[in-house]
Amino acid sequence: MTKQERGARTRHALIRSAAELFERHGYARTRLAEISSDAGVSPGALHFHFRNKAAVADAVEAAAARTLRDAAYRTARRRPNALQTLTDISHVFAFMLSQDVVVRAGFQLGHDTVRCPGLDLRQEWEDCVGQLLDRARKEGSLAEGVPLGPLTATVVAATTGFEVLGRTDGKWLSRHSLTGFWQLLLPLVATSQALSTLAPDGAGSVADESLLIPEEFVPEPGP
Amino acid sequence: MTKQERGARTRHALIRSAAELFERHGYARTRLAEISSDAGVSPGALHFHFRNKAAVADAVEAAAARTLRDAAYRTARRRPNALQTLTDISHVFAFMLSQDVVVRAGFQLGHDTVRCPGLDLRQEWEDCVGQLLDRARKEGSLAEGVPLGPLTATVVAATTGFEVLGRTDGKWLSRHSLTGFWQLLLPLVATSQALSTLAPDGAGSVADESLLIPEEFVPEPGP
Repeated sequence: MTKQERGARTRHALIRSAAELFERHGYARTRLAEISSDAGVSPGALHFHFRNKAAVADAVEAAAARTLRDAAYRTARRRPNALQTLTDISHVFAFMLSQDVVVRAGFQLGHDTVRCPGLDLRQEWEDCVGQLLDRARKEGSLAEGVPLGPLTATVVAATTGFEVLGRTDGKWLSRHSLTGFWQLLLPLVATSQALSTLAPDGAGSVADESLLIPEEFVPEPGP
Repeated sequence: MTKQERGARTRHALIRSAAELFERHGYARTRLAEISSDAGVSPGALHFHFRNKAAVADAVEAAAARTLRDAAYRTARRRPNALQTLTDISHVFAFMLSQDVVVRAGFQLGHDTVRCPGLDLRQEWEDCVGQLLDRARKEGSLAEGVPLGPLTATVVAATTGFEVLGRTDGKWLSRHSLTGFWQLLLPLVATSQALSTLAPDGAGSVADESLLIPEEFVPEPGP
């Protein structure tokens, strides 16, 4: 292993350990010493990578954003249809939230009252939903008279609810729950022609392992 | 003012001050000394009412639960129809969340990772939604083939999303947002006969001041 690879591996271990501690104890109660000790790393090594706790939180959020954006990009590329893309991305994100503590912590940190605001993954998600539904309208797959604003708000609110409720009860992030939601909503909002091609269960998007490969250890420069 | 009334007033001021601090800094970072000082009360008076910070949090949660249950009860009593009751209660709760820091803190405390679990207002809300939709089915106002489980999950997830997103952006708790949600959902789930009688905007439920009177200073025994 090169020195760069070792550095990236250490950084990755610190981000994961921080995400676990933020989730368990909250940002305010997590101490830097715990992050390094849980990662099996010396305090000096932590300080080589991160100036302070806020910098670690920024890195957790950035890692979550990279994972989610990459999955969204790859899902969108495989789907010609905006409604199916939205359905698939929601399934992929729910799966990632249920499996990946960094993704969960990334969402939570954006709304931690103690921390200075960093990235806002919920706002990014809202923009993504809005853009995809706007594309669906342009593609002609939204039924006549479906109002874009309330539809976007409903999808954003419901998926945010699945994320938040899923923190204490995993059933909310199951494929079954998301499928039930889309089975209810899609017949209301899609034209009957579009509906016949849509798969509310995400059409195997989660089963496709290429979307879910673990984060790579891409070497990054130190501070 | 009797001694009992003074005691109740002090207790109320402490609960309000605690709710504000929990919301602003989180449960973990709030100190008892701040709660008493912000309430304009001596530390001794605080300790007369509450053994420790956990007891204050329990009282915030209980006060929020009382306010919400009372509003739900009074809304339900005025509506013969379960779907309209559900719509109205969601409007009343959104209004209360936007106006009352004790109600907001009550919801948040139930999912504070640091605190031992107390009441769970979200679980109560889930039960309430499930019961009302079950009643709507029995009343014959749910359209043929609408699955009760996914419908309940969708309403719970979306309203939880409105609550969580409303913490950082008040527009999510506006009457406009809730009305858009029900305007979208009700035509899908209600029979056309039921639909003709339903008001997605809550039919003036929030405008009715009798539902929104401030919490009374009911004297309660000390510890």
